[in-house]
Amino acid sequence: MHNDLVAALDIGGTKIAGALVDGDGKILVQARRPTPATEDGESVMRAVTEVLAEVGASPLWTRATALGIGSAGPVDAAAGTVSPVNVPGWRGFPLVERVRLATGGLPVTLVGDGVAMTAAEHWQGAARGYDNALCMVVSTGVGGGLVLGGKLHPGPSGNSGHIGHISVDLDGDLCPCGGRGCVERIASGPNIARRALEGGWRPGPDGDTSAAAVAAAARTGDAVAIASFERAAQALAAGIAATATLVEIGIAVVGGGVANAGDVLFLPLRRSLREYATLSFVRNLTVAPALTGTNAGLVGAAAAAALGRVPAAQIPADTAMSAPTAL
Amino acid sequence: MHNDLVAALDIGGTKIAGALVDGDGKILVQARRPTPATEDGESVMRAVTEVLAEVGASPLWTRATALGIGSAGPVDAAAGTVSPVNVPGWRGFPLVERVRLATGGLPVTLVGDGVAMTAAEHWQGAARGYDNALCMVVSTGVGGGLVLGGKLHPGPSGNSGHIGHISVDLDGDLCPCGGRGCVERIASGPNIARRALEGGWRPGPDGDTSAAAVAAAARTGDAVAIASFERAAQALAAGIAATATLVEIGIAVVGGGVANAGDVLFLPLRRSLREYATLSFVRNLTVAPALTGTNAGLVGAAAAAALGRVPAAQIPADTAMSAPTAL
Repeated sequence: MHNDLVAALDIGGTKIAGALVDGDGKILVQARRPTPATEDGESVMRAVTEVLAEVGASPLWTRATALGIGSAGPVDAAAGTVSPVNVPGWRGFPLVERVRLATGGLPVTLVGDGVAMTAAEHWQGAARGYDNALCMVVSTGVGGGLVLGGKLHPGPSGNSGHIGHISVDLDGDLCPCGGRGCVERIASGPNIARRALEGGWRPGPDGDTSAAAVAAAARTGDAVAIASFERAAQALAAGIAATATLVEIGIAVVGGGVANAGDVLFLPLRRSLREYATLSFVRNLTVAPALTGTNAGLVGAAAAAALGRVPAAQIPADTAMSAPTAL
Repeated sequence: MHNDLVAALDIGGTKIAGALVDGDGKILVQARRPTPATEDGESVMRAVTEVLAEVGASPLWTRATALGIGSAGPVDAAAGTVSPVNVPGWRGFPLVERVRLATGGLPVTLVGDGVAMTAAEHWQGAARGYDNALCMVVSTGVGGGLVLGGKLHPGPSGNSGHIGHISVDLDGDLCPCGGRGCVERIASGPNIARRALEGGWRPGPDGDTSAAAVAAAARTGDAVAIASFERAAQALAAGIAATATLVEIGIAVVGGGVANAGDVLFLPLRRSLREYATLSFVRNLTVAPALTGTNAGLVGAAAAAALGRVPAAQIPADTAMSAPTAL
C-alpha cells in the first residue's frame, strides 16, 4: 500500500536510532539514544524501548506495517538474535522477539548493519542500477554487504559481505576477531591513526589523533600520514579485488568516516586496485564513494524490512529479495 | 523430457573431452584429444571439432537437446568467448558460436571449469544438499565455483568463485595473473613442490618432483615436505574463510590432484581454518574432499547446460539457476 510506512532501528556500539520511513526512503520521524554499551543486556534493551516509544508516540505510527533492524554484527537472522562485538551485554540476545513484543507484533526483519547500508546504497545511492555490488563502511570498523543478481544478498544469517574480517595478510597482525591480517586490522580509522603515530606523525595543537586528522596531514603532504592511508588503501583494494574475483561485482561503494578523506583514500585505492584486480572479468570494476550518508542504516533497515514483506511465493529462496518497490 | 541427453565439453590446458550425459549424470559416450595448447587458435578448435565429431557419431547423439561447455578460464559467458591462460592461441575466442555451428545449432551454455566442477559436486558430490557452498580444484592451478541460495552462481561472466586468484598475502610473491600473494601462488601443486625443493627436500631415485611426491615424503615424516603442505593449507584456509565471511557457505569442497594428498592436506587445512574462520557465522564450516572425480568437468558442464534450458520465466534473474532436474 502506498500509504504504508516502515519502522526502522539502527543499532550501533555508539548510538541506537529509530525512525519511520516512507516509500521514497524519506525519514518522517526520528529518535536516538546513546548505546549504554558497557552495561548489562537489559539496560541496552531499555534504550531500544525508549527509542521505539518516542517514535511510536507519533500519530504516523499507525501506518507502520513492518519493522527493519540493522544491527552491528554478528547477527543471526535465522535465530533472531544479535551479538554485537562492541556490546558485550548482548550475546545471542533475542532482539527480534523483544522488538516484536515491544511493538505489539509488527513483523520484524533483522540484518547486519553492513547489509542495511548496502540496501540503502542499492536503493538510493551509488550502487543504484548495479546488479552486482559490494557496499562497505570504513569507520571505527570495516563492514559491508552484497547485491548479487540484482538482489540484496544478506545470506542465511544476515551477515554476508563481512569484508572487514577477511584476511588479506595471512601472516599479519592478530585481529580482535581472532583472525590475522584482516582488512579491518589494517584499514579502519583507528588503525590508520595508530600506524601514523607509530611512524612518527604527531597531531596538531588540538591533540586530534583521529583518522580525519591524519587525512588532513596527508593533504598537506605529510609523508607518514600519506603512507598510512596508502597501506589502508592497499588492504581495501586486496579485499575488494577478492570480492570481485569471487562473486563478480560491477561496483564497490565505500562510505563511512574514513571515506570522507576523499582523494587521500580514493586515489591510492584505485591505484592499488589495479594491482590486485587483474583478471579480465574484474579489471573494469568501478570504485565510488557512498551517497546515502548517516541515515543509511535507517533507510536500509526499512528497505530490508519492506523486501521481507514481499509474499514468499514471489521471492525465489530463503534469502533472495527483490528491489524495494514494495515500500 | 526424460529421454533427453545433454552433450558436454570439458576444455583444459592438457586435454579436451566431450561426452553425452544422461539425466542421472551418467556418461554414455566419451571422446578426448590432447589440447594443442601451444598451437594457433584454429588448431585448438580443430581438436574440439574432432571430439565433437567422435561423440556425434554415436546413434545417441540425436537425443542431445543442449550442449554445455566448462572451459579453463577466464571465460566470458555473456560474449560467448574464452581466453584460457594456458592456451595463448585463444584470446576472446568465440567458442560458443563455433560449437553451435559445429553441432547444427544446439543451444550452448558456457561456464568456467571451476563453475562446472561445482555444478557436478552440488548435483552428485559432497556439496549435495547444501544451499551455500564453495567447491574448488587444487591442482596445477586453483579454481572454484559457488552455490548460493541453493543455486549455482556462475556470475554474469561465468567466472564466479575464482578463489585461486584472491590475494591472501598482500605483500607476497607476484602471481602470473599480475596480482600478488594469490591462493594459487602458494597452494597449487607446482608451488607446493617448488617450496619443498627450495627448503631442501630432494626427490627419490625416480626423480619425481610432483606435489604427490612431496605428499609421500610428508607421510614419512619429512619436515620440509610437511611444512610446504602446511603453508598451502594455510593459504587455502585463508581463502576459504574469506569466501565464507563474504557469502556464508556451509561447506568447502576440495578436489583436484593436490586433494589426493588426503590427511597431509586436510588435517592442517582444518587446523588453519580455525585460525581464519573466526566469526560466529563461519565457525562451523565443513571441509570435505570432492567426490565426483575426473569426470566432474563433463558432468558439471552438462548440468549447467540443463539448468540453462529451464524456461526463462521460471528462473529469477540473469544467472540464477535451479537444481538440475531438467536433465
